[in-house]
Amino acid sequence: MRAQAQRAIDAKTKPLGALGRLEEIAVRLAVVQNTLTPDVSRSRICVFGADHGIADEGVSAYPKAVTAEMMRNFAAGGAAINVLARANGVDVEVIDVGVDADLSTLENLHHAKVRRGTSSFLQTAAMTNEDVAAAMEVGANAIRRAVSEGVRAVGFGEMGIGNTTSAAALLAALVHQSASVTVGRGTGVSGEALTHKRAVVDRALALHASAGEDAREWLRRVGGLEIAAIAGATIEAASSPIVLVADGFISTVGVLAGLRILPADRAAVFRDSLFFAHRSTEVGHTIALDACAALGVDSRPLLELEMRLGEGTGAALAMPILRWAAAVLCEMATFASADVSTGDHSNEHSA
Amino acid sequence: MRAQAQRAIDAKTKPLGALGRLEEIAVRLAVVQNTLTPDVSRSRICVFGADHGIADEGVSAYPKAVTAEMMRNFAAGGAAINVLARANGVDVEVIDVGVDADLSTLENLHHAKVRRGTSSFLQTAAMTNEDVAAAMEVGANAIRRAVSEGVRAVGFGEMGIGNTTSAAALLAALVHQSASVTVGRGTGVSGEALTHKRAVVDRALALHASAGEDAREWLRRVGGLEIAAIAGATIEAASSPIVLVADGFISTVGVLAGLRILPADRAAVFRDSLFFAHRSTEVGHTIALDACAALGVDSRPLLELEMRLGEGTGAALAMPILRWAAAVLCEMATFASADVSTGDHSNEHSA
Repeated sequence: MRAQAQRAIDAKTKPLGALGRLEEIAVRLAVVQNTLTPDVSRSRICVFGADHGIADEGVSAYPKAVTAEMMRNFAAGGAAINVLARANGVDVEVIDVGVDADLSTLENLHHAKVRRGTSSFLQTAAMTNEDVAAAMEVGANAIRRAVSEGVRAVGFGEMGIGNTTSAAALLAALVHQSASVTVGRGTGVSGEALTHKRAVVDRALALHASAGEDAREWLRRVGGLEIAAIAGATIEAASSPIVLVADGFISTVGVLAGLRILPADRAAVFRDSLFFAHRSTEVGHTIALDACAALGVDSRPLLELEMRLGEGTGAALAMPILRWAAAVLCEMATFASADVSTGDHSNEHSA
Repeated sequence: MRAQAQRAIDAKTKPLGALGRLEEIAVRLAVVQNTLTPDVSRSRICVFGADHGIADEGVSAYPKAVTAEMMRNFAAGGAAINVLARANGVDVEVIDVGVDADLSTLENLHHAKVRRGTSSFLQTAAMTNEDVAAAMEVGANAIRRAVSEGVRAVGFGEMGIGNTTSAAALLAALVHQSASVTVGRGTGVSGEALTHKRAVVDRALALHASAGEDAREWLRRVGGLEIAAIAGATIEAASSPIVLVADGFISTVGVLAGLRILPADRAAVFRDSLFFAHRSTEVGHTIALDACAALGVDSRPLLELEMRLGEGTGAALAMPILRWAAAVLCEMATFASADVSTGDHSNEHSA
C-alpha cells in the first residue's frame, strides 16, 4: 500500500514531491487505512480533565477550582477548544476522569471519574495501581467509542490545574533529566515561582527514585489521571486503524508514557498513525517530542504557532492538515486524466 | 482598535498570550477591518497565469505548453489549488494575464491577457512599459473585484513555465545578490541544468544593470506578466481594508516588487494586512521573505510544510489560520461570561 500510494501521488499534476509533508501524510493515511482513498473527515478531540494533589503545593497561581470551572466552560462550548474545533468541523468529547468537584449533573460531558484528583506526589504516590489502571481504561474506552462511532482521527487534549508540574516530573523521569530541563514557565511562571516549581519536581524525582526504569510506575507515582488516560488511549490505539494526534506538552508526555509502556514491537504501528500537532512554547514539549522521535515515530510538529494553551487546541488545528493530505490523494487529477505534459521529472515544473 | 482588540483577547478564558500567533493575527484582523468581530469567512486565491520568453532558453525541462495545460486543469477543478481551496472553502479565480495560447473559449477563467508571454530577457526587456502597466492593472482589478464581491482575504497564486527563473532574476536585482543566492533547484533542477539556470540569471542581471535601483524597471525588464499582476494587486490593496496572503517564492517576489514600488509611507498599512502563508523549500523564498521583513512587514510564514508547488496552494492552506484567529476573538467566552476564576496572570493556568 505504501508503494501504491506513493505511485498515486507521483501521478498527480504537480512536480514530484512538491506538496512536501502533505504527500508524506497522504501516504501514511493510506497505509493506516489500507486504501488509496483515505477518509479523515470525522475527527474528534478527547479532552480529559482531572485534578492534581500537587496543585496544593503552590506550583500554580490558579486555584484548583479552575479545573472544574473550565470543564463547565467546555460543556457550554465557550472555551478555545470548542471554538477552534467548531471552526474546523472537529468533534469535542470532554471526559471527567478525575476532577475534584461534583460534575455529575453537567451535560455534554462524559462521566468517567476515577477519583477526585490525585494525591500530592510530594507526600505519596499520586495514584494507586487500581487508579492508574482505571484511568488508562477510561482512555482506552474513549478510543473504542471513537472507532465504533466512525471517527477516523482522535486528538488528545487535557485540562487540570497542576498538570504541567506532573508532566514535567514524569518526563524528567522518563528521559533521565532534572527539573531544570523539563520544567518550563508554563503559562508565565518566572522568578521565585519557577524556582519553587523546579524544586518541587526535583524533590519528587528523588522521593520516587525507586521506580527506576518502570514507565508505568512513574506514571502512577507522579502522573495524573488525565495523563494516564492519554497513555491508555495511546496503547489501545496500537490495535486499531485510527489516527492519533498529540497536542502540546502534557498530551505529548501522556503519549510518550503510552509508547514507553507498550512493547517496542507493537509501537511500530505509530510510525504511520501518530501525528504531533504543533510545537508548544513550553520548553519541555520539545524534550518530549525528541523522546518520542527516539522511539522511531515522526514527531516533527505540523504547526508552529507559538501556542501553549493545552485543551487539545493544537490538535484541533492539525486535523485539517490531515484532510488536506487525504484530499490530494482522493481528488487531484493525474497528468494522464488532465492531459498535462509530464516533461522531465528530474527538472522543474512551475519554473 | 489595536488596544481594544488586545484587551478583548486578554479577557478570553485562557492564560495571557497562550494562543500565541493566533492572538497577534486576531488583533491585526481587528485593526484592518476596524471591528472587534473581524470576518474572513470569504477568501479567494487569485491564480495569475502567464508565459515567459526565458522558457525558450532551456531553463525548464517542462515544455511551455504546460502553462496552458495547467490553466485548463485549473478551469476543470483538478489541480492542487482547486482541491486544497475546496477543502478549505476558499474561492479560486484563475486569471489569464499572458498565457501563450488561445484560452478564449475556456470557461471558469477570467480573460485578461495582456500579450502571449513575455520576451526572453536574455535578448531584450521582458515587457514594454505599456505591458507592465497593463499587467499591474489586471492585478489591481482582481483586488477591486474581490472587494466588490465581499471577499475579505485574497491570496496570490501563479502558474507559468519559466517563472522561477524570472522571479530569481527580479529578486537578485531587488536585493543586490547574485544568481548563486536567489536561484534554487526549483522543482528539481540540479547539476548542469542548475548551473545553466544560474548563468542565465547572471547574464540577465548584467544585461539589464542600467535599471539600477528602479524596482518597476527591473519588473519590466526581467519580470513576468503574472508577477507584475501580483505587484499591481499588492499596490491596489494598500488602499483597501482587504487582507493579503502571499504564497511561495514567485508570489512573494511579486508582493516584494509591489512593496518596493509603493511609497514607503503607503506600505505601512501592510504591517497589519499582509500575511505570508508558508515557507517554500525553494531557497530564494527565504531571501524574499527577509527582504519583505526589511520593509517593516511581519514575514514569518504561518506554515512550514516543505511545499514548493506554487499555484497559491500555500495561501489556500493559510486561510483557515486567519479564520481560527477571528473565531477566537468572535466566539470565545470571557472569564467573566463563563464565571472562571482568573487567578494570578503572572503565573500559570492549565499548569
